[in-house]
Amino acid sequence: MNKFFNDPNNFVPEMCEGLVMANPDTLSYVPEFNMVYRKDMPSDDKVSIIQGSGSGHEPAHVMAVGRGMLDAACPGNVFAAPPVDFCYECIKRTNGPKGVLFIVNNYQGDRMAWEMAEEMALAEGINVKGIMVDDDVSVKDSTHTIGRRGVAGNFFVIKALGAASENGADLDALVTLGKKVNDNVRSMGVALTSCTPPAKGSPIFDISDGEMEMGVGIHGEPGRRRDTLKSADDIVTELFTNVADDLPFQKGDRVALMINGLGGTPISELYILYRKAAQLAEERGLVVVRNYVNEYCTSLEMAGASLTLLKLDEEIEALLDAPAEVPIRVF
Amino acid sequence: MNKFFNDPNNFVPEMCEGLVMANPDTLSYVPEFNMVYRKDMPSDDKVSIIQGSGSGHEPAHVMAVGRGMLDAACPGNVFAAPPVDFCYECIKRTNGPKGVLFIVNNYQGDRMAWEMAEEMALAEGINVKGIMVDDDVSVKDSTHTIGRRGVAGNFFVIKALGAASENGADLDALVTLGKKVNDNVRSMGVALTSCTPPAKGSPIFDISDGEMEMGVGIHGEPGRRRDTLKSADDIVTELFTNVADDLPFQKGDRVALMINGLGGTPISELYILYRKAAQLAEERGLVVVRNYVNEYCTSLEMAGASLTLLKLDEEIEALLDAPAEVPIRVF
Repeated sequence: MNKFFNDPNNFVPEMCEGLVMANPDTLSYVPEFNMVYRKDMPSDDKVSIIQGSGSGHEPAHVMAVGRGMLDAACPGNVFAAPPVDFCYECIKRTNGPKGVLFIVNNYQGDRMAWEMAEEMALAEGINVKGIMVDDDVSVKDSTHTIGRRGVAGNFFVIKALGAASENGADLDALVTLGKKVNDNVRSMGVALTSCTPPAKGSPIFDISDGEMEMGVGIHGEPGRRRDTLKSADDIVTELFTNVADDLPFQKGDRVALMINGLGGTPISELYILYRKAAQLAEERGLVVVRNYVNEYCTSLEMAGASLTLLKLDEEIEALLDAPAEVPIRVF
Repeated sequence: MNKFFNDPNNFVPEMCEGLVMANPDTLSYVPEFNMVYRKDMPSDDKVSIIQGSGSGHEPAHVMAVGRGMLDAACPGNVFAAPPVDFCYECIKRTNGPKGVLFIVNNYQGDRMAWEMAEEMALAEGINVKGIMVDDDVSVKDSTHTIGRRGVAGNFFVIKALGAASENGADLDALVTLGKKVNDNVRSMGVALTSCTPPAKGSPIFDISDGEMEMGVGIHGEPGRRRDTLKSADDIVTELFTNVADDLPFQKGDRVALMINGLGGTPISELYILYRKAAQLAEERGLVVVRNYVNEYCTSLEMAGASLTLLKLDEEIEALLDAPAEVPIRVF
């Protein structure tokens, strides 16, 4: 296991600590709940948007805390749902006059934690609601999921809700918006290698040189099949076709197109994937209004990628264009 | 070799093509010379800032083309210097009334190509000069280098020169500035795994589980020693101490601190490294004014990281703060 860490049990807390130390003017941290939050939260003027999920998917979700994105995140351990008290405390501490909206990706552990926390908060009179993300078209039901898994499409839900909440939208409007974004986003991924959670110390699944797991989940859950590694263009074609056929996306649709790296794939390869994906979009008559080629939702150091399409309307497009701030600096 | 590619010989051209397809409003491409350039170049109002180096270090340098950064890049193949004609054409095509400045990292192949291209351009009356980056403190002389290697510190040279050229600085002033930034920046890296260039098909060096190459170069050149893998804190302490002692950085210095991922290391681990690095900076009395925790100069999918310190003065600090645009989107 060739990784940078100290005590594997402190992997997530030390990551959060580093993140907050790197952003001392904007972020704060409650170590007991792995809670990273915007210093200026809760605000009287906006619904707080929060998320807590397993770690190991960075920059999702803890590195999406910032103006116009999440107001707080309370990640669990690597690939483990946050405990109920993390969720409950995160709701409570971000609650303001306009209430709290949590985003939960569709995994049983995450849902259970957030639903229990929601009940506890509601019992105290807190105005809290949640929305669920389940954008992965690859399989229905999986190791940790009933229904579809929530993967990189979550990024667009955060971006839209973060922007709309900054604009003053109320809780019910945000729930409607979050559902609309989720209804219009589809993803599928492929793994070329496995990955090793620090506390486990061994790969979460075995895969040989020259193989790929088509439709993999972001915790290494099985996809549709194990296959021999194909060319980049063939792989993208399979991902694109499955994603685009699912909604389905149709000629003339304005879309956002994301090629998301799973952690161990260099950005050079992601642009090779984007090249073919953009050609396929054009052939299908989709208008790619915005594109995203980077890491947004990873699986530690897994080599692999996912493709996401989001169907835009005027409202969503404006929200994607809205200003935002994240802790990660590109220049 | 579990990578996304089609024909290994088209790896770099397809990456460039994807990059330009993802940025159709701002970037253009001359396939014969792998030349990616700002559509609005050359400008009458600024010196053009260009770079061409081996590929495989993305986002360096081809993904640093944008307003306030590079005006053009002409990358060679993976880990191979660009041919002379790439450099010559890149100079010629970006030349405007204020001339051209190229940035070259200190590798023999890169220097030879750029120096020959410079001579050819000068003979045609083009006003061109170059500056060299050699920030790696780990070894003097290396596989491809006489003197110190140029590594992630190059990012700061690009950022400062890009901003100053936007402000209208002339060629001589930019040469002086580029030398100043290079004189004040120091880096050192460590590899936890090797990496595989697509055309080679096998790792560039062997390293076992539980080992690290302390002081590695960005093409896998040997560092100071092979050692057993240490804790994240111990590794950062060694990197930081070597970097900070070299200038040396002194109590009260205002600095930029970068933790750069080498490609295969998740950003979670980079923040664990940053945590300790920031503590060490504070202990030494350095004032970390800006920090950079992300991938800036990679070695394909190598797991590893480098640490860079840049000593700031008022001029450099303002240039780092200046607006810029790069093709990579974080939100």
